[in-house]
Amino acid sequence: MSFPSRRTALRALLRAAELDALLVTDLVNIGYLTGFTGSNAALLVHVDGDAASLVCTDGRYRSQAAEQVPDLEILIERGSALALARSAPERGVRRLGFESDAVTVDAHTALDEAAREVTLHRAPGLVQRLRLVKDDAEVAALRAACAAADAALADLLAAGGLRPGRTERDVALELEARMRSHGADGPSFETIVAAGEHSAVPHHRPTGTVLRSGDLVTMDFGALVGGYHSDMTRTVVLGPAAGWQRELYDLVAAAQAAGRAALAPGAKVSDVDAAARSVVEDAGRGDEFVHPLGHGVGLQIHEAPILAKTSTGALATEMVVTVEPGVYLEGCGGVRIEDTLVVRDGPPDLLTRTTKDLLEV
Amino acid sequence: MSFPSRRTALRALLRAAELDALLVTDLVNIGYLTGFTGSNAALLVHVDGDAASLVCTDGRYRSQAAEQVPDLEILIERGSALALARSAPERGVRRLGFESDAVTVDAHTALDEAAREVTLHRAPGLVQRLRLVKDDAEVAALRAACAAADAALADLLAAGGLRPGRTERDVALELEARMRSHGADGPSFETIVAAGEHSAVPHHRPTGTVLRSGDLVTMDFGALVGGYHSDMTRTVVLGPAAGWQRELYDLVAAAQAAGRAALAPGAKVSDVDAAARSVVEDAGRGDEFVHPLGHGVGLQIHEAPILAKTSTGALATEMVVTVEPGVYLEGCGGVRIEDTLVVRDGPPDLLTRTTKDLLEV
Repeated sequence: MSFPSRRTALRALLRAAELDALLVTDLVNIGYLTGFTGSNAALLVHVDGDAASLVCTDGRYRSQAAEQVPDLEILIERGSALALARSAPERGVRRLGFESDAVTVDAHTALDEAAREVTLHRAPGLVQRLRLVKDDAEVAALRAACAAADAALADLLAAGGLRPGRTERDVALELEARMRSHGADGPSFETIVAAGEHSAVPHHRPTGTVLRSGDLVTMDFGALVGGYHSDMTRTVVLGPAAGWQRELYDLVAAAQAAGRAALAPGAKVSDVDAAARSVVEDAGRGDEFVHPLGHGVGLQIHEAPILAKTSTGALATEMVVTVEPGVYLEGCGGVRIEDTLVVRDGPPDLLTRTTKDLLEV
Repeated sequence: MSFPSRRTALRALLRAAELDALLVTDLVNIGYLTGFTGSNAALLVHVDGDAASLVCTDGRYRSQAAEQVPDLEILIERGSALALARSAPERGVRRLGFESDAVTVDAHTALDEAAREVTLHRAPGLVQRLRLVKDDAEVAALRAACAAADAALADLLAAGGLRPGRTERDVALELEARMRSHGADGPSFETIVAAGEHSAVPHHRPTGTVLRSGDLVTMDFGALVGGYHSDMTRTVVLGPAAGWQRELYDLVAAAQAAGRAALAPGAKVSDVDAAARSVVEDAGRGDEFVHPLGHGVGLQIHEAPILAKTSTGALATEMVVTVEPGVYLEGCGGVRIEDTLVVRDGPPDLLTRTTKDLLEV
């Protein structure tokens, strides 16, 4: 889907909300709607079409904006959002939507003053609603990002990169370098490598801690390709797994399979979470699965839909989500298994291809 | 300055604003006040002291929070800010400040409902005001971060890493790896390497473009050390500089020297910008210096004070700022020279030690 057609799709939502225009200030949303990648911008999407719309950025991005957004009028001014709010009256805007889930209380006050007789209306999540369902090019980018992460882990294992004596940080840097050599622009978030007791800390930051024989080692990482983020987790054992390690792994793997099996168009996201969580709860470990089952992934590493007990909404085809149950035994160790998948009619399309058999390396 | 003493300093600002407590939701501010580094948290700083204060995070960070914030009560709940707003009435809070420069319009509505009879009051920038002036440990971390960046560039040059045939991306990755080998936890932002015409694009992202003999090459990069960010820029020439390149370089170097010379306690930030900008304007190049002169740097890569034409406020000792004029000739090339410095009585303390002589490599 081209950038102009995304703006056309947004206009249908504006009409439904009876808005004359939307002031887009979230940079990720601006990127989605225009392709612009600078660090300062605002975008006015007018319901009447691109001829009445415009984007604003500052002088640092003059040539970049002209190149990336050839099909919209470009205004160069540092206070982008305020400049567009000021321009709204002369463009015939009376009801101007703003991203109330992104605009701060103070920024809203300033916008309100700048917009003069134009009234500001809360319009949260409109662009995010479009971003929920990925088009073919987006799925292709996510597939490439997942493949780069899979390939990096395969290379790491083949090269003997997971062995006693290396540090968590060594492993994290090697995964990142190997993702780059497989076409990634970089890691999609701060790589997690958690060895031994650290594997019980879901979001552990890699340290100089040395990997030891017998350790569980959890690696949670992803690649960035063309602006799209992949996300995967595998927990392996250094050497033969102890009984408790295998038991824990099998439990998480069963929960993960149940979560994947529940992915279907129309399924409530809370039911998908429950499908996996009930497996863990039935084993008496519900209190040790301390986070939601998964999340959408795309231009952001965490985006809608969130697969959580308390979330509302349902899945649809071409949504891309992670399924990542984890069980964490404090002071001892933990296991998490995470794939990225595309929701489809029929079984989901598994973008993360690495085996989920317990690896004893 | 310890975390408890930072909270004590904040309480003086709360008393001046007649607030019973501040709800801190900006994660950088929470890190500054507590040392917590997780990705979800809120903090209630009660004017009565730490015994009445508490921090909230979710189950993923239970053990990490206990370790990093041993001196505050910890609540485990996913909706951290709402949980603390709900707890405010029972803690005797009547007037609750919130970070109106960070809280979104929608989040504010939810907080207002959760806080019940407690009234919410805008309290923007209170913690940022404390963060403006760095303590000795912060300056030491910034000095180390600047030294890692200096050392990385020195190594790159010594190893012949800047030569025709390499790509911008090669150079960026090598700078980042070399910063790590000099003790950085990673780059402090996305490294900019801009060769030839790209040097006229202030925030160019490194591409597969090959460096050619005669190119201006701008490198804007920094290191992250203990949470603190360094920031430096140098433009070099591959081979002997052409006349226009040297002229451009000398102009920017003169502006940069004027900006550094204007750094003094009490100096208006707009005057510091003007000191450098007037040098460029007098040369008839004012329109090609398209960004502010500099910015504060610390726990964030861009923080207060901003050294810009339209900024208000004045410098004080122990503020840490960048001075980074640039002149950009579209389609041709540009030069930027940037140091990080500590404002002191007398001359500023130059943390970036790399030479500012034009390097022909």
